[in-house]
Amino acid sequence: MGYALSTTVDRPFEQVLAATRSALADQGFGVLTEIDLAGTLKARIGAEIPSQVILGACRPPLAHAAVSVEPSIGLLLPCNVVVRALKDGETLVEALDPTVMVTMTGNQALSDVASEARELLTNALVSLDGTLTT
Amino acid sequence: MGYALSTTVDRPFEQVLAATRSALADQGFGVLTEIDLAGTLKARIGAEIPSQVILGACRPPLAHAAVSVEPSIGLLLPCNVVVRALKDGETLVEALDPTVMVTMTGNQALSDVASEARELLTNALVSLDGTLTT
Repeated sequence: MGYALSTTVDRPFEQVLAATRSALADQGFGVLTEIDLAGTLKARIGAEIPSQVILGACRPPLAHAAVSVEPSIGLLLPCNVVVRALKDGETLVEALDPTVMVTMTGNQALSDVASEARELLTNALVSLDGTLTT
Repeated sequence: MGYALSTTVDRPFEQVLAATRSALADQGFGVLTEIDLAGTLKARIGAEIPSQVILGACRPPLAHAAVSVEPSIGLLLPCNVVVRALKDGETLVEALDPTVMVTMTGNQALSDVASEARELLTNALVSLDGTLTT
């Protein structure tokens, strides 16, 4: 894929969603937004998709550092972490790879922030004890 | 920049924020999330940045079409529209260019959805009567 850090966890959706919130908090990320995408699509247009929640994770010192060197980076904040149900009781957790901030903007001054965010998000995903793909 | 659709509006921040919400609604976008980034950074780490609010805009039929062809696209949803104060009473409104969905994923099946979202977001920005940059 190239734009996601991912882990597949062999536990049901609700359990993994709760564990993901805790794992993000353990790495210093606040969850600023939460969208029940499956519920929203069902309510608005009657569409059915597997359970999917989009968490907007933000670590304020990193967000501040990013805005300081790239004023428009709010377009990519907060960092989305998506939890969605797969078949057979498995759950996929994906985070937008922060490296994307550098490649999309072409601003190398974001490299350190992106590296730190990537390391912390990877730690969070690793702690879920799944099968990691980066 | 290459990743933003932008317009600079010669009116103060709060007015433009309200106008942006209306403009998005007029184009069929619901605002699912709203982050007062300046307020959050001030409260969490005492950092001072100019007024900045990140609106998470979503048009459910487009989101559903995107998820149907690219299951991980939730990582780029909702579409961020950022309103931030510039100097001298001007306000910048930027939207993440939906074309990014195609370039980042390499999935050409997203092209139609991205084009439609781009057109609607451009309409919203144009309606703010500012100086448009795409």
